[in-house]
Amino acid sequence: MFSRLGGHVLDVSAHCDLPCGVYDPAQARIEAESVKMIIQKVNDSDDPDMKARGLLIKEQRSELVKHHIWVLWTDYFKPPHFEQHPQLHMLVNEATKLAGATGTKGSWDVSKADDLLAKIDEIAEIFAETKKG
Amino acid sequence: MFSRLGGHVLDVSAHCDLPCGVYDPAQARIEAESVKMIIQKVNDSDDPDMKARGLLIKEQRSELVKHHIWVLWTDYFKPPHFEQHPQLHMLVNEATKLAGATGTKGSWDVSKADDLLAKIDEIAEIFAETKKG
Amino acid sequence: MFSRLGGHVLDVSAHCDLPCGVYDPAQARIEAESVKMIIQKVNDSDDPDMKARGLLIKEQRSELVKHHIWVLWTDYFKPPHFEQHPQLHMLVNEATKLAGATGTKGSWDVSKADDLLAKIDEIAEIFAETKKG
Amino acid sequence: MFSRLGGHVLDVSAHCDLPCGVYDPAQARIEAESVKMIIQKVNDSDDPDMKARGLLIKEQRSELVKHHIWVLWTDYFKPPHFEQHPQLHMLVNEATKLAGATGTKGSWDVSKADDLLAKIDEIAEIFAETKKG
Amino acid sequence: MFSRLGGHVLDVSAHCDLPCGVYDPAQARIEAESVKMIIQKVNDSDDPDMKARGLLIKEQRSELVKHHIWVLWTDYFKPPHFEQHPQLHMLVNEATKLAGATGTKGSWDVSKADDLLAKIDEIAEIFAETKKG
Amino acid sequence: MFSRLGGHVLDVSAHCDLPCGVYDPAQARIEAESVKMIIQKVNDSDDPDMKARGLLIKEQRSELVKHHIWVLWTDYFKPPHFEQHPQLHMLVNEATKLAGATGTKGSWDVSKADDLLAKIDEIAEIFAETKKG
Repeated sequence: MFSRLGGHVLDVSAHCDLPCGVYDPAQARIEAESVKMIIQKVNDSDDPDMKARGLLIKEQRSELVKHHIWVLWTDYFKPPHFEQHPQLHMLVNEATKLAGATGTKGSWDVSKADDLLAKIDEIAEIFAETKKG
Repeated sequence: MFSRLGGHVLDVSAHCDLPCGVYDPAQARIEAESVKMIIQKVNDSDDPDMKARGLLIKEQRSELVKHHIWVLWTDYFKPPHFEQHPQLHMLVNEATKLAGATGTKGSWDVSKADDLLAKIDEIAEIFAETKKG
Repeated sequence: MFSRLGGHVLDVSAHCDLPCGVYDPAQARIEAESVKMIIQKVNDSDDPDMKARGLLIKEQRSELVKHHIWVLWTDYFKPPHFEQHPQLHMLVNEATKLAGATGTKGSWDVSKADDLLAKIDEIAEIFAETKKG
Repeated sequence: MFSRLGGHVLDVSAHCDLPCGVYDPAQARIEAESVKMIIQKVNDSDDPDMKARGLLIKEQRSELVKHHIWVLWTDYFKPPHFEQHPQLHMLVNEATKLAGATGTKGSWDVSKADDLLAKIDEIAEIFAETKKG
Repeated sequence: MFSRLGGHVLDVSAHCDLPCGVYDPAQARIEAESVKMIIQKVNDSDDPDMKARGLLIKEQRSELVKHHIWVLWTDYFKPPHFEQHPQLHMLVNEATKLAGATGTKGSWDVSKADDLLAKIDEIAEIFAETKKG
Repeated sequence: MFSRLGGHVLDVSAHCDLPCGVYDPAQARIEAESVKMIIQKVNDSDDPDMKARGLLIKEQRSELVKHHIWVLWTDYFKPPHFEQHPQLHMLVNEATKLAGATGTKGSWDVSKADDLLAKIDEIAEIFAETKKG
């Protein structure tokens, strides 16, 4: 389950719930990185069309962030994980809210994207711990 | 642009084409890993419902593989990359075909998924090289 | 916000989070009713094509159930709701799992659909309470 | 087929065309309510970002309205219904146009949303009558 | 608005409803041709996997047929067209039903696809007449 | 495989890769025509809402153009075609780029749409030649 990617070693986290399943917080993170980039690029520009397109794509990417996190929470995490990590529910709820109207969807403040990325990393830490056990 | 993920260091490759853009061959790879898992799981089972669901999800995930690779080829790679890597067109074409009817969509042979993963890794190597330059 | 529908009075629950938003557990329930109907219809039939189509549509409708419930949990419910209803996280998590691989996606057992409907109704009860306050 | 929802009794209208099917004009109505809310909220605001996001989401929700109404017209209603309700074709055509470019998609006039809601209610009345028969 | 395509002259019918719009019954026809091909190919084969994939893709393509026809009916055709062609409503309704559960979605009978194609051609005739006027 | 459409004879190009498949460059062309119309209509107007909606729909239609061209390149064209038409890879790559950020997505210049249409016609010429053989 190791593959060289970009010269680095990437541990593609995997769990089989059926059918499949390959879970990986990287999916949410890649979209959230994209959201941050869009915010920065739009803030650095004064082209109204770039802003309009940025708003549109930020909306879609933020929705993907929400979706990928929801999938982890529902499909990957199980009751024992929630018992061991009682903060996990609120963490996931806050992360998905940070990709919504009160977060990156409704704001051009890059700190919203940073907060979102930090929450995704917290979820990824817990995810990583559950893979060790 | 470094983030700890699963206890490992993940270099989220990024490139800004605008609006955005965060490109990462990991997106195609995660879906292709999923396709391989589905094939293995279905081959190890004799439940017809699992096979029916696996066929359906394999179709969707394979389509995602194609989409993510197409996006890299059109949105990330530029003429100088094609000049430096003249095999890149056929590599991408073969990779997307391997996720189609003559590949993982139309087969339960795990070697198709392995071939697909190997092609994605070849694309990822070239991708990584272009990031260094 | 009252509208006659089917001869009955339907209170379309609404909440504005921005932009919009009209939240209503009925969306999840309609899809879950559909899932139950599909299961019953397929179980009462011996047509393999109906079963194949039923499996496919059951997969899609179950996914919609998950999506509608996730939206309620992330976009509608707020921290005070979670404090007042500490069981809400697990309730939502169990409901979405019941529309997944271990629930209506992976089974032809009508009791899975009934369990899913019961969970949706529990969420709807809490939802209704929050509208009163 | 009765379920308590939000403290009220909701008659989830159902009809099985197969596979499934649960038809309910509430689906179109919920989206149309959302469209109306968006229009009101944007009209009451002077935030250009809220307007831009509202325009985007209004487009999507209006499309959902069209889709749900089309499904009723094609999948639920049958020739005898059209004979009994000769106005039904134009009613459906006008309702879907009201969710399009000449209706809620192309306008910030709340009366367009009200007209759309009124048409949906007319369709729902006919729908309810057909369930009695 | 003429373009050589496949060695023949293709008159891409166009009408601007705004924003845009380019309407063309060819979109529905291409998908319906695909549905017919799938049916023929599956009927000529005894590979259960081809049948399973064919069923899945037939479902999606049939849905696209419905969507393209609905768009013509709601977005392109206007009241004067309906007055001049009083059969148009039922024609469209029948065409979309022929791409549904009682048509190509629910059957492997190639005559269903032929009936669907014939209805699309009837709609295309009316469409062509309205372009002349 | 001939059908009268709009008073003209349309040769619906078809190829069966399985399952199905009906390939036709007309699909990409219709969407690209739509993109051109949107650009013209928005340029001729000073309504900011029409521009905002045009930007949104131009984004979606451009994405469809990309998708339809990618499908031709991966699913229809085979190695012998690439040998006979060595320019095909770059032609397809340029066409899809012309429907992207550096093309019709990121611009209101109608010449971008004209360039895109010309590239699609070049692809259609090659497509037509391969059907003769």
